[in-house]
Amino acid sequence: MLSKPQIRTVTSLQHKKFRREHGLFIVEGIKSVTEFLQSDYIVQHIFYTPQAAAKLIKIPQNIKSDEVSGETLERISALKTPQGVLALVRIPSYPPLTADALRNTFHLILDDIQDPGNLGTIIRTAEWFGFRRVICSPNCVDVYNPKVVQATMGSLARIEVHYTDITALVRDAPVPVFGTVLNGTPLYETAFGHEGLIVMGNEGNGISAAVLKHIRHPVTIPRIGRAESLNVAVSTAIVCAELARNGKMGAI
Amino acid sequence: MLSKPQIRTVTSLQHKKFRREHGLFIVEGIKSVTEFLQSDYIVQHIFYTPQAAAKLIKIPQNIKSDEVSGETLERISALKTPQGVLALVRIPSYPPLTADALRNTFHLILDDIQDPGNLGTIIRTAEWFGFRRVICSPNCVDVYNPKVVQATMGSLARIEVHYTDITALVRDAPVPVFGTVLNGTPLYETAFGHEGLIVMGNEGNGISAAVLKHIRHPVTIPRIGRAESLNVAVSTAIVCAELARNGKMGAI
Repeated sequence: MLSKPQIRTVTSLQHKKFRREHGLFIVEGIKSVTEFLQSDYIVQHIFYTPQAAAKLIKIPQNIKSDEVSGETLERISALKTPQGVLALVRIPSYPPLTADALRNTFHLILDDIQDPGNLGTIIRTAEWFGFRRVICSPNCVDVYNPKVVQATMGSLARIEVHYTDITALVRDAPVPVFGTVLNGTPLYETAFGHEGLIVMGNEGNGISAAVLKHIRHPVTIPRIGRAESLNVAVSTAIVCAELARNGKMGAI
Repeated sequence: MLSKPQIRTVTSLQHKKFRREHGLFIVEGIKSVTEFLQSDYIVQHIFYTPQAAAKLIKIPQNIKSDEVSGETLERISALKTPQGVLALVRIPSYPPLTADALRNTFHLILDDIQDPGNLGTIIRTAEWFGFRRVICSPNCVDVYNPKVVQATMGSLARIEVHYTDITALVRDAPVPVFGTVLNGTPLYETAFGHEGLIVMGNEGNGISAAVLKHIRHPVTIPRIGRAESLNVAVSTAIVCAELARNGKMGAI
């Protein structure tokens, strides 16, 4: 049984302001919660229904856990169809990215991605193709938004997501800066070398002017039909696949 | 000014049952409505606000149109943020696909895609890469669902979407049948030839057993990281890009 203030605290985590205040975010579903338990994240509290209990891995003793009714879980869940288990996980903090951290590999740089499903899908895709980090502009949707967490399908447990001033990052980058635009070099003719930043732009407006002027290598996914643009998660995936296809991404 | 029964009729089109009954679906937004006006679709009725009127192309005289208040548009819109113009468009009917129609090109076959955003994104991506048709199993989400229409970003105006018994289609296919699975031939080693059907499976369950047994060429997108799977719109995009990369998709 959860008290009303406890319920209020959990549901407040659906809002960024309260996530920052408490330093916590919500992870839901057996698969995702299990992946966070097996990761470097600090899981602070797990709520589960009797039905879900049987399917959960053994919860380490140092993690608070409470069996709750399906009705209570529904009240604290951010999902339309709650999945029987909900964890409160600590928001991690990462040391600032050094120039060395950016070398000898590729990083995705996201410029004001707004749609939670797009950000989640990009993180899931980035992990599939061996990226270790995704770097977001401060105006990207919050990665700890429950819809983003859900869309990463557990990949957030294994990938670092940084928020930083990406204009300064690309300006001072110690590696080549690529970016997808509508009139650049065809993707398949781009020489990616062995390291770089790859900037993906906002859903409606593409890459912002301030960032665009630091993009030395504009890249375009060749178009055959007449669609005006591609969804940003789709463009990101095609670029990531191309890097992987050419052996640019090492196994992690 | 719209009467209450008129408003009820338009909003009823948010449900598949009533779309079929009236043979109509909703298209919203200046860009999408313009693309449908310039397509082979029959646009039956356009509702627009005074603010949107200036941005619309001239509406042909044979199409009914009504200026309505922003408030009325909000009542009939299926969007959270209505975009000033809403059109009622006739659901097209296509002749059954002949064996000849399937030859000398590639078709995407979608097996029970459930998420409206995924279906819309797949259609948008398919158009970008030069596909003329997308073929859906009867249990796919309805392509005339407003969320799907929205996610196609106008591409639905230029691509045929068929619903048919895809088990029979792949069983009797006159061209090679490819399908994405988790343990097939690596995508980049697959010989696609010059024609084929490419089956993409359901979000949670992949390709259904009945369809799977007719897949002669299982294909896998090579994984480098540890993510368990890719989003289906992302997988579809990577496969489409690979076909386009290899010159398999002709300009249309």
